[in-house]
Amino acid sequence: MDAVCNGPELQYREKIRAVADALRAHKGPIFVVSHVDPDGDAIGSSLGLYRALRALGKEAFWIAEPPRYLRFLVREEEYTGPLERLPEGALLVVLDAAEPGRVAGAPVEGFVVNIDHHGTNPRFGCLAVVDPSKAATAQMVKDLVDALGVVWTPEIATPVLTGIITDTGNFRFANTTPEVLHTAAELVGYGVPLAELTDRLQWRPASYFRALGAVLSTVAFHFGGLLVTAHLPPGVQVEDSDDFVGLIRYAEGSQIAVFLREREEGIKLSIRSRGGVSAQAVAVSLGGGGHVPAAGATLRGVGLEEAYQRVLAAVEEELRRTGYL
Amino acid sequence: MDAVCNGPELQYREKIRAVADALRAHKGPIFVVSHVDPDGDAIGSSLGLYRALRALGKEAFWIAEPPRYLRFLVREEEYTGPLERLPEGALLVVLDAAEPGRVAGAPVEGFVVNIDHHGTNPRFGCLAVVDPSKAATAQMVKDLVDALGVVWTPEIATPVLTGIITDTGNFRFANTTPEVLHTAAELVGYGVPLAELTDRLQWRPASYFRALGAVLSTVAFHFGGLLVTAHLPPGVQVEDSDDFVGLIRYAEGSQIAVFLREREEGIKLSIRSRGGVSAQAVAVSLGGGGHVPAAGATLRGVGLEEAYQRVLAAVEEELRRTGYL
Repeated sequence: MDAVCNGPELQYREKIRAVADALRAHKGPIFVVSHVDPDGDAIGSSLGLYRALRALGKEAFWIAEPPRYLRFLVREEEYTGPLERLPEGALLVVLDAAEPGRVAGAPVEGFVVNIDHHGTNPRFGCLAVVDPSKAATAQMVKDLVDALGVVWTPEIATPVLTGIITDTGNFRFANTTPEVLHTAAELVGYGVPLAELTDRLQWRPASYFRALGAVLSTVAFHFGGLLVTAHLPPGVQVEDSDDFVGLIRYAEGSQIAVFLREREEGIKLSIRSRGGVSAQAVAVSLGGGGHVPAAGATLRGVGLEEAYQRVLAAVEEELRRTGYL
Repeated sequence: MDAVCNGPELQYREKIRAVADALRAHKGPIFVVSHVDPDGDAIGSSLGLYRALRALGKEAFWIAEPPRYLRFLVREEEYTGPLERLPEGALLVVLDAAEPGRVAGAPVEGFVVNIDHHGTNPRFGCLAVVDPSKAATAQMVKDLVDALGVVWTPEIATPVLTGIITDTGNFRFANTTPEVLHTAAELVGYGVPLAELTDRLQWRPASYFRALGAVLSTVAFHFGGLLVTAHLPPGVQVEDSDDFVGLIRYAEGSQIAVFLREREEGIKLSIRSRGGVSAQAVAVSLGGGGHVPAAGATLRGVGLEEAYQRVLAAVEEELRRTGYL
């Protein structure tokens, strides 16, 4: 094991092969986990690998608490509760977790395999395969399942494709490379019912439609339509997965969208931008962070009205910096 | 020409090759048109083929009136106004038009090439390539451009991919086959800026958000949530492209969704279903038609309230027939 742990930085394919070799050689139980607040890629990549390991005859366990909207992917008998300790001789596979502190369901101890596409991942664990060029950790699991030589079934392919779909915004984001689309084609060819899957991934409870209606009544345009804002009116219930900024950002001609939501810790801002305007710059100026096109911040100790004023000031500065104003 | 017109039913690839041969051999002007009320596939497939023909050095013209949300694809100098007669020696390529009466912008006369994926197409024209197994006519244009030997550029690939994206619901519908995804991968590889394209295709005017908010205030559930309905409140302005039934159909647990809209000719119904329930059966029972998962009807001479009553009665019958009630 030490040779593997301390070996040179192998190339991606070699690393995937090394992980496949380690998993195939392992005699004890294998626990597959992901990160806290799991999204489609966390659930999809871990569930897909778990099922592939089971198909190989491995003593594999899947520890995860999927959000309600992803539970349709899982059968009741596939759940294993969280563990405080791992048994002797266990191997832990951690998927899509950008840091050890974000790992959910099991302690990061013993022989740890770390597979992730977040560039900030500190490469923890014995065997770490971190490739930020991949759109989703599920894309890496696709390669790992191939390397394991497991025969693809719809059972395995469906969660893997789910991870790719959710992390690419259903093939909409800039990470949707030709490789992603070829992989998706291959997985659909293995029998994933794509239309049913994408249908199911979009189901929303009745409360969502009420909340969205309430949110839309707050939509406002500023700076001649360059900024669109909306907020969640007090008392309206939503799920954490409800992506309202992802809707208002499509206001025609807008270069930046900000959604405000009151939370216990303050006013939470979700910011999206395009056309050279930086959501990140606005977020950073308000004490938050993120990526250029998608960022966020939390304003503590202020009410909604003051939050709006701060947002408008920060956005105005960014629109001036980028020459829109 | 007669040999081509009267030749045997050639296989799809051979037909595409025959069309490519005819286009390459043609010395006069070539007019590329599509159908009335053009959608993304009509505009995308015709604009893509027009640009490919121009790249070949052909005297090609594109006649179309794209809806506002698709005009970003087109440069000003690419528009040619509608023609009442075609000049002598002209060749007319008709794309995505299910019948001659739906062709827009030019008379269906002279040497007509008919390329379409609607199974009901009566195979009009001299050379007809009709393949209902294709997700989009744009998919067929992809094959035709390959057969023409035109070097792919982002200029040509972008409208072609647009047709595929819009006719597959951005890779969501059941027509999203592995072939579709491989083709999309190839087109993205030719330099289509996918993220920008899908972003632009989702832009909506400010009026959309107001209309959607108003529509959501009418969302109602019936038969224990199996049916979800909504309508456009009187006086609210929308564009024809605004797809509200496409949103409410994702109500969790619903098997059928009906959206009602008052029009001059009556109450127009848009119906969507899943899980064995037939939108088509409901539409037919109300005097309309369509496909099993997506259908529509127009109720003439009734008000909104009576329209709702008829919808509820028709849906109840279908839910009983399918065992949900």
